Amino acid sequence: MSDNSTITESAVIAIARRIKHFGASRLIKGIGDDCAVIRTPGAGALLITSDVFIEGVHFLSAQPPESVGAKLLAVNLSDIAAMGGTPGEAIVDLMLPGKTPLDWVERFYAGMSEVARRFEVNVAGGDVSRHPDRITLALTLTGRCRRDEVIYRKGAKPGDLVYVSGTLGDADAGLEIVKNEECKMRNGGALERKYLFPEPRIELGRLLARTRTASAMIDLSDGIAVGLRQLGDASRVAIEVEADKMPVSDALEGFCPKRGVEAADWALRAGGDYELLFTVPPEKARQVERFGLKRPGLPRLTCIGVAAAGEGVALLSNGGSEPLQMGGWEHFRSDAPV
Amino acid sequence: MSDNSTITESAVIAIARRIKHFGASRLIKGIGDDCAVIRTPGAGALLITSDVFIEGVHFLSAQPPESVGAKLLAVNLSDIAAMGGTPGEAIVDLMLPGKTPLDWVERFYAGMSEVARRFEVNVAGGDVSRHPDRITLALTLTGRCRRDEVIYRKGAKPGDLVYVSGTLGDADAGLEIVKNEECKMRNGGALERKYLFPEPRIELGRLLARTRTASAMIDLSDGIAVGLRQLGDASRVAIEVEADKMPVSDALEGFCPKRGVEAADWALRAGGDYELLFTVPPEKARQVERFGLKRPGLPRLTCIGVAAAGEGVALLSNGGSEPLQMGGWEHFRSDAPV
Repeated sequence: MSDNSTITESAVIAIARRIKHFGASRLIKGIGDDCAVIRTPGAGALLITSDVFIEGVHFLSAQPPESVGAKLLAVNLSDIAAMGGTPGEAIVDLMLPGKTPLDWVERFYAGMSEVARRFEVNVAGGDVSRHPDRITLALTLTGRCRRDEVIYRKGAKPGDLVYVSGTLGDADAGLEIVKNEECKMRNGGALERKYLFPEPRIELGRLLARTRTASAMIDLSDGIAVGLRQLGDASRVAIEVEADKMPVSDALEGFCPKRGVEAADWALRAGGDYELLFTVPPEKARQVERFGLKRPGLPRLTCIGVAAAGEGVALLSNGGSEPLQMGGWEHFRSDAPV
Repeated sequence: MSDNSTITESAVIAIARRIKHFGASRLIKGIGDDCAVIRTPGAGALLITSDVFIEGVHFLSAQPPESVGAKLLAVNLSDIAAMGGTPGEAIVDLMLPGKTPLDWVERFYAGMSEVARRFEVNVAGGDVSRHPDRITLALTLTGRCRRDEVIYRKGAKPGDLVYVSGTLGDADAGLEIVKNEECKMRNGGALERKYLFPEPRIELGRLLARTRTASAMIDLSDGIAVGLRQLGDASRVAIEVEADKMPVSDALEGFCPKRGVEAADWALRAGGDYELLFTVPPEKARQVERFGLKRPGLPRLTCIGVAAAGEGVALLSNGGSEPLQMGGWEHFRSDAPV
C-alpha cells in the first residue's frame, strides 16, 4: 500500500513505471527519457513527448499569450532535440475558463504558429474543454529519427567529456525581471527573451545524432544540477564539473551583482534554460568543437567536466570537490517557482 | 478582432484551424476528424488523438479512480476505432493537487492498465505536475492504419445506409444512477458499467476498415444527434433517421419509465455512449450485416437511416419529418453535464 500522506513527482512516476507494456515489441524506450521511442517500419523511430503548462504554475497569468504558445511548443521541441530528432506533429489540449478572452486564444496560437513555422511542425489536433479554475494546457509532440541515431540519457562512459550548449541561468534571471515588470514584453532584454521565448536546440541535436558524436544527452528543463544527476544515473557514471567552467552570458554577469550572487552560482541553481547537456567520447571532442565554424546559428558549446567511474555529481571549485546540490524543483512543492 | 465577450468550443476550434501547416506534405488530415492522420513511410499512416478529463467536468470527484483511468484510455481508443485503426502508444499527463492520495494514482493506473492490456497499448510516457485546483488529466493516443483503409467522417454518398453499433442512451442513464448512488462501483448494472467503463469498438472499426465496407465513420462521444450532424456535414449529405429504429437496451427500457420519458427520446438526446456511427453503400450492407455471425464479441449493428442529397439531419417519426434537435453539449456551458 502506498503512503497516502505525501504525493511527489517521483512517487507518481514510480507508479507509472510499474505498468506493464502490452505492445512491448514496438516500444524501444518508455518512461525515463526525454521522449518515448517507438519502432516504426524500416530503420525509423517515432519520438513522442508531452509537457503541460498551468497558469500560475508554469506561466504567469499576465504573461503575453504569444509567449505561452511559443514556449509550450518550444519546451516540447527541446525534448525532441535532446533525442536527436526531427520535429513532427503537435496535438494541443486547451482547457480554458469560460471567461478567457478569445483574443487570448488568438494570440496564444499566433505565438505557437511562429515557432511551428520555424521548425516545420503541424498543429494537427487536440481537445478543447472548459476548465473551471484556470488556463491549463497540454501539448504532445511527435518527432522522427533513425533508430541507430537516437541519443538517450544512457550511454555516457567514464572518460567522456561533458558539454552544455548556450549559457546557463538566463531564463530564471529573465523571470525575475519579467515578474518585476509585470510581464511587459519587450524586444530588448536577452534575459527576458530567454524566459519568454526559449530557443529549442533542434539543429544541434540533429547534428550530434547524424554525426554520432554524442554518447548521451538530456535537455535542461529543471536546471544543470538535475540534468547532470539524471544523465549520470541513467548512464551509471559519476560526473565531475568545474564551477568556473559554467557558461554565463554578459547579461547575467550584469544582473547578478544587484542580487548579491555570483553568476556561476546562479547558473548552477537556475532552471528553465532548455539547453542541451551531452557527453562526447574524447576522440570525437575535436569534431564537436569545430561544429560552430561553418554554422553561425549554432549555440556556443562549453566543456564543463568529465564522466568517471562511480556515481553522483561532484562540483570542483576553489581547489576542492563537493557533491553538487540539486537545484531545480519538485512540481508538488507549494513554493515551486512559476 | 475576435468577440471577447464569449468563448465557445467552436470559436476556439475555428482559431486553431486557421493555423497554417508547415509540414503539410506529412499531414493527410489535421483538425476536424476523430484523429489526425500523418503519412508514414510505405503504405502506412500514423493516427493521433487526445482527450482531456477534468474532475467535476468529465468525471465525478467520487468516481472510482479505476473507472477514471480505464475510461480516459477508452475514449481515446474510441477515436482510433472511428478511423479504423489499431491502437499504439499512450502518453498520459497527470496534473494533481498536492492532497491527491497516492492510492488514487495507483488505482487510476490499475484501471488504465487493464484496458491497455486488452488493446495492447503501451503507456509510454507523459508529464506529471502539481495542479492547484483539481485533478486534470490529458491522454494522447497513437494508432496505425494503412493509408488506403483509413475511414474519415467525409465519404458518405446519397443512398448510403446509416448504421450505429450497440445501444444508445445507456451511459447517460448510468451516470444518473451512479450520481444518485454516490458513485458506488458495482459489478451489476449494465447502465452504470456503460458510463464507468465504456467499451471502445476497436474490433468493429478494424473490420470495417479491412473490408472497406464503410464509406464514412465517427464515434459518438457527444450523442447521436451531434454525430449525425458532423458526419453529414463532413460528407456534404443530408441524413434521415427513423426514431423507432434507435437501438435501446432492455436496461434502458426499464430505466426510462421512472423518468417519464420514452427510451427512444432519451437515446436521441443522450451522450457519452462511444458507439460507432457509420455509413455503408447499399451493395455492401449485406456483408456488414453478416459480420456478427462469426464474431460473437461484436456489438449489434442497427441500420437507423439513409444518407440523401442535401444537408441537415431529419428525424422521421409518427409519419412526419422534422429537423433533429442537437443533443450533446457545448463544453463551455456552465450547465454542461459532468
